[in-house]
Amino acid sequence: MDLFGQKNIIIEYWQFFLPLVTIGISLILLNLNRKPDPRESSKPTSKPGAREERDLDPSEIESQKSAREDSNYDEDALTAALEGVAHKPYPGIKVTFPGGVEKFYEMVNDRRSVRKYSKRPVDWKLVEKCIHSAGTGPSGAHTEPWTFCVISDSEIKQQIREIIENEEYTNYAQRMSRQWTTDLQPLRTNYVKEYLTDAPYLVLVFKQAYSMREDGKKKQHYYNEISTAISVGILLCAFQSAGLNSLVTTPLNCGPALRNLLQRPASEKLLVLLPVGYAADDCEIPDLHRKPVEEILVKY
Amino acid sequence: MDLFGQKNIIIEYWQFFLPLVTIGISLILLNLNRKPDPRESSKPTSKPGAREERDLDPSEIESQKSAREDSNYDEDALTAALEGVAHKPYPGIKVTFPGGVEKFYEMVNDRRSVRKYSKRPVDWKLVEKCIHSAGTGPSGAHTEPWTFCVISDSEIKQQIREIIENEEYTNYAQRMSRQWTTDLQPLRTNYVKEYLTDAPYLVLVFKQAYSMREDGKKKQHYYNEISTAISVGILLCAFQSAGLNSLVTTPLNCGPALRNLLQRPASEKLLVLLPVGYAADDCEIPDLHRKPVEEILVKY
Repeated sequence: MDLFGQKNIIIEYWQFFLPLVTIGISLILLNLNRKPDPRESSKPTSKPGAREERDLDPSEIESQKSAREDSNYDEDALTAALEGVAHKPYPGIKVTFPGGVEKFYEMVNDRRSVRKYSKRPVDWKLVEKCIHSAGTGPSGAHTEPWTFCVISDSEIKQQIREIIENEEYTNYAQRMSRQWTTDLQPLRTNYVKEYLTDAPYLVLVFKQAYSMREDGKKKQHYYNEISTAISVGILLCAFQSAGLNSLVTTPLNCGPALRNLLQRPASEKLLVLLPVGYAADDCEIPDLHRKPVEEILVKY
Repeated sequence: MDLFGQKNIIIEYWQFFLPLVTIGISLILLNLNRKPDPRESSKPTSKPGAREERDLDPSEIESQKSAREDSNYDEDALTAALEGVAHKPYPGIKVTFPGGVEKFYEMVNDRRSVRKYSKRPVDWKLVEKCIHSAGTGPSGAHTEPWTFCVISDSEIKQQIREIIENEEYTNYAQRMSRQWTTDLQPLRTNYVKEYLTDAPYLVLVFKQAYSMREDGKKKQHYYNEISTAISVGILLCAFQSAGLNSLVTTPLNCGPALRNLLQRPASEKLLVLLPVGYAADDCEIPDLHRKPVEEILVKY
């Protein structure tokens, strides 16, 4: 045994190297697995404005992460594309609701979630104008991060129904906590979703996490979920304005399968699915009430 | 050296145990660090409806987790409270937009984000009715998970402005990726936010993660973020219907400080902040265009 022979050191003391190698691999794995903390590298240490930031929820953290970590970034191209945007004087609102917000309230307060649809056809022009209206919503950095897929093809509607019913069956039978199932009880929800084939149209709203610029680089869409959900709020008002019933649903775990079915790109994720049409003659709704304004509004 | 003496085995071969112990600790650390997967314990193995579920985003995972993991759950109390909800026949929509969806589109397409406000007062009744309208939005299991805080007090507005400007200064100077700052360039956003004190009202919209029932137990609000963002879409339509300008902002990292200032409970998190009022006489807006409907609508 020669302690000073290089080859012999490795052979004799491999037991000492092994833990070091293992620790190294573990640290690499830990790091790969860890959610990166966007605040870590740039968190200010003594700025008076810096406050406790620990109770951000995952979507906030996600938004902020995408906003601060950017690969494929070409500032020059982006600046060149955007700095041509001129400003113009704004004369204020020109179009309001006939009758004002009192009448607008009457309209939106008349909206109810409808789970049973007539097969009576709906004029395509109405649906298209509703989607067009939804597209007027605001979005982070004006990215307009939404895609509205509108299905009238009965075979595709049937496929969507099968995907959702299979998954909902699993949800109800195996996955859901007893509480959620109980919460939904007064709404008589179950895994049979006739509205998915009865309603003349299904609208699947996808949020776009990013888009590809002409130069092939990614453009991040900050706050794409909030922006797209806001546009769904405008969509609901549009449906109501057109006399169309709808229902906002969030098919649990079905996003990937539905995205594949509709061949949407990986940048898009399903936010909500809405059947659209006229309520069936024998449609019933739960006799629920909305909170009075004093319960949702706090004055300061 | 006695290979068969227990004590001696450990002393002589500690080099063999060390890597095993290290691997064990690493696995434990990996597991602690990992985001829990709500599907793991109950994932079906051979159900035909079970599909690839791997590209859920964090907010989806969060929603599903809260839906399935429930402490403090008293099914009997919940069932007793809810099973009294009767169903009633639904005669269909009675109130639509005068002029239909074509006119509704004209109204929402007239909306622009306004960053410079007149100090001209706004009738409180208008603002209240807009909030009331927003409260008609749909929500997961009819939880109505939103609180609208409306600020007219000029001292509180000043405090809000200081919180946000300090934080925004830090954002702009230190935190933001160069891309985000560049994306926002055509909107002329910077860390000075005069609208926070100029606008007659600020509306801070909080999403409620849960509420407390009378028996002191938690009621989870599923999909509270999507629901609240949809209600903000309705709110924007309401402001437009009332002839009021607004602006949707998401003050980065300010949620906790603003929640503390307004003394909102821990169950509530800031989603967006909107100044509300009339555009200043010298208000300018970027000459941006919206995507044509063909770019946001896909027919199947």
